Amino acid sequence: MSSNVPISGQGITAPTPQNTPLNQAPIAQGLSRPMVPVIAEDDEQESVNGEDTVPDLSQAQAHLLGMVQGRLAGLIGKSSGYIESLPLPVKLSLEGLKGLQVQQDELQAKLKREITELEKKYLELTKPLYERRNAIISGKEAATITEIDAGYDYSVKDDPKYEALPKDPPPTATAIPEFWLTALRNHIGLAELITDRDEQALKHLTDIRYEYLDDSSDSEHGGKPGFKLIFTFSPNEFFENETLTKTYIYQQEVGYSGDFIYDRAIGDEIKWKEDKDLTKEFEIKKQRNKNTNRTRLVRKARPTESFFNFFTPPLPLDDINLEDLEDQEADEAEEKLELDYQLGEDFKDKIIPRAVDYFTGKAVDFDMLGDDDDDYEDIDDEDDEDDDDAASDDEEEPARRRGPPKGRGNAVNPEDCKQQ
Amino acid sequence: MSSNVPISGQGITAPTPQNTPLNQAPIAQGLSRPMVPVIAEDDEQESVNGEDTVPDLSQAQAHLLGMVQGRLAGLIGKSSGYIESLPLPVKLSLEGLKGLQVQQDELQAKLKREITELEKKYLELTKPLYERRNAIISGKEAATITEIDAGYDYSVKDDPKYEALPKDPPPTATAIPEFWLTALRNHIGLAELITDRDEQALKHLTDIRYEYLDDSSDSEHGGKPGFKLIFTFSPNEFFENETLTKTYIYQQEVGYSGDFIYDRAIGDEIKWKEDKDLTKEFEIKKQRNKNTNRTRLVRKARPTESFFNFFTPPLPLDDINLEDLEDQEADEAEEKLELDYQLGEDFKDKIIPRAVDYFTGKAVDFDMLGDDDDDYEDIDDEDDEDDDDAASDDEEEPARRRGPPKGRGNAVNPEDCKQQ
Repeated sequence: MSSNVPISGQGITAPTPQNTPLNQAPIAQGLSRPMVPVIAEDDEQESVNGEDTVPDLSQAQAHLLGMVQGRLAGLIGKSSGYIESLPLPVKLSLEGLKGLQVQQDELQAKLKREITELEKKYLELTKPLYERRNAIISGKEAATITEIDAGYDYSVKDDPKYEALPKDPPPTATAIPEFWLTALRNHIGLAELITDRDEQALKHLTDIRYEYLDDSSDSEHGGKPGFKLIFTFSPNEFFENETLTKTYIYQQEVGYSGDFIYDRAIGDEIKWKEDKDLTKEFEIKKQRNKNTNRTRLVRKARPTESFFNFFTPPLPLDDINLEDLEDQEADEAEEKLELDYQLGEDFKDKIIPRAVDYFTGKAVDFDMLGDDDDDYEDIDDEDDEDDDDAASDDEEEPARRRGPPKGRGNAVNPEDCKQQ
Repeated sequence: MSSNVPISGQGITAPTPQNTPLNQAPIAQGLSRPMVPVIAEDDEQESVNGEDTVPDLSQAQAHLLGMVQGRLAGLIGKSSGYIESLPLPVKLSLEGLKGLQVQQDELQAKLKREITELEKKYLELTKPLYERRNAIISGKEAATITEIDAGYDYSVKDDPKYEALPKDPPPTATAIPEFWLTALRNHIGLAELITDRDEQALKHLTDIRYEYLDDSSDSEHGGKPGFKLIFTFSPNEFFENETLTKTYIYQQEVGYSGDFIYDRAIGDEIKWKEDKDLTKEFEIKKQRNKNTNRTRLVRKARPTESFFNFFTPPLPLDDINLEDLEDQEADEAEEKLELDYQLGEDFKDKIIPRAVDYFTGKAVDFDMLGDDDDDYEDIDDEDDEDDDDAASDDEEEPARRRGPPKGRGNAVNPEDCKQQ
């Protein structure tokens, strides 16, 4: 079984694009976050494996397939005839490799499951800290001297000149006012969503937690993995709910890259008190009665921007008939969906774990990573003298401006945000 | 200890940017891959925690700090005076929360270590499959019928019309020619780096593996985590090395986001055979002897583009005196570094684990995720008739073009690549 068959395909070489300029380096190709499926029903079918035969797909899928093939032809060293041109013994070896890939994929999926279990374990380990945090924020318990000393060390790491707080009189149980509202306002995506009216309700937000979904097959969501965000509110004049939850459900099977793919998101229905629905605007309209010819005033509700729309998430794209949408509408639907998923991830991975950093603003700087510093102009030293006086004193000449790592994502340009 | 002190700061509200337009949704903010540190020595110091006092940083750091403060002022609900304005009891509660954050961070770092251990465990579990893969690719062993059947299932999932290969005569041990060269050429970043001359050497590439670094403190790299890529070559006319390795070292401490941060990369020295250095171009120059006035021909080497420059990676930015560089040079250095790190990650996470998909071209499509479909124009159905004939037959009207998820990274625009 180990005799070497002469390979007639030895000299066959697919066309190469080695002199092809790539204007942008493919830095951000790797997607580690859960992805939005293009066509959610069968993610696998979108791929092309270099065959001439076109699978019997839905029209939209087939069209996409054509697009992808059209795009790639001549671009990358993958000619559609190359694999076919290989002699049968080579093709059989290749088919064997694909069989091995199935085994590798199984191991990869097992690894993903084990990592998810680890994350669940550590969420449980973190819960007592979240309990304690909530007790301090709400003023139920006082911070201990040990915690305060550790907090000082944490601050001084960022700012060597940070001054320790006086600990006499000793710390008392003292609530931090509007802790979560302030934290959310320091998230660059949420800041945009929170209206003045929302703030009055979000002042009553007392905690945010998350739980992983039970992924045993008899569970609520049919064993699909995912997580649930739980927002707790103190009694308020806006709605009856004590908690509002938002559930993000992943697809059962991980995607090609080994990461989860979103299935859909579900939000709690908000039981608004009368006239308090923050997701609606009311306008007064005059109506004339055709019979009596008398006029009356009626109030009409129309949807408006609000953070609380977060709890009525957009439908997955496969629930919308894409054919019926204009290109722009479909793009907007896709963007809304991605923003909704991204906010869910950010709550789970950033805001809940690092709430204090969002409150103080420390986290903002790290969220700004990914900005391309080519988007900024140099600012004259005179202009920001107020901010870095102490530093300027030591400067012989202006230091070269260094931005955060660039080219690592879809930059959010703060310059755009300043046009208020 | 649970008496509630009246909060004079209750009414203080930082300015809010809720009506600020964000032109781009912050989809790609989350960086899950290891990051390039801006100033590697002390990543923490770059952050701002809303204090007026400016820490005693290096000039470049202080300047950056000023830049960041300048950028954010008025942008996000973080006024530099807000934290200071809080009454002492609230400040103490807040300091306690920071102390809790230290404990949370410790748990997070422990989770990261456990995940890394899991990844190591699964790499070990995958090794027999990599051994087997190498035996099939090199023609040492034949694929089994079981593997070939599993390979058929794998193919047919992507393409329902995929036809099974005849298994009579039975599969023999048959090498797959230029397997790794073909796979590498199907990686969009590497395709750009591999020259015609490189191909002659890369035909001798027989395997690529990776190992995690030993992160015990007495190990070679002082216990820093990381990984090593190992490229194995058959004897060839270009260099003496049987293997070329490239080592990526992470910093000991994980970054703010909980991910690894790159420290540096190290490559093996290539022992080029005479006149075979693919990273050099030679030009012949005439020289005149000042004494004899006779001319002679000398050969001068100059660096040239080559995949093999991968083994002499760029220096980390903290080793370069950024002050001495022009803006453009520094940007280029940063880009080179990021590309080098990204290639390392792609070898480890994509190319090695899914080599067969790179060989067939299947992986290319997934690498194209992240392209923004706004970058493409619709193509008339007539134009790509060759590609989707079978699909077009069923089409009543052109289906709406659907691209891959967009806004998820720094799009590599294939249109740019076509200008050959």
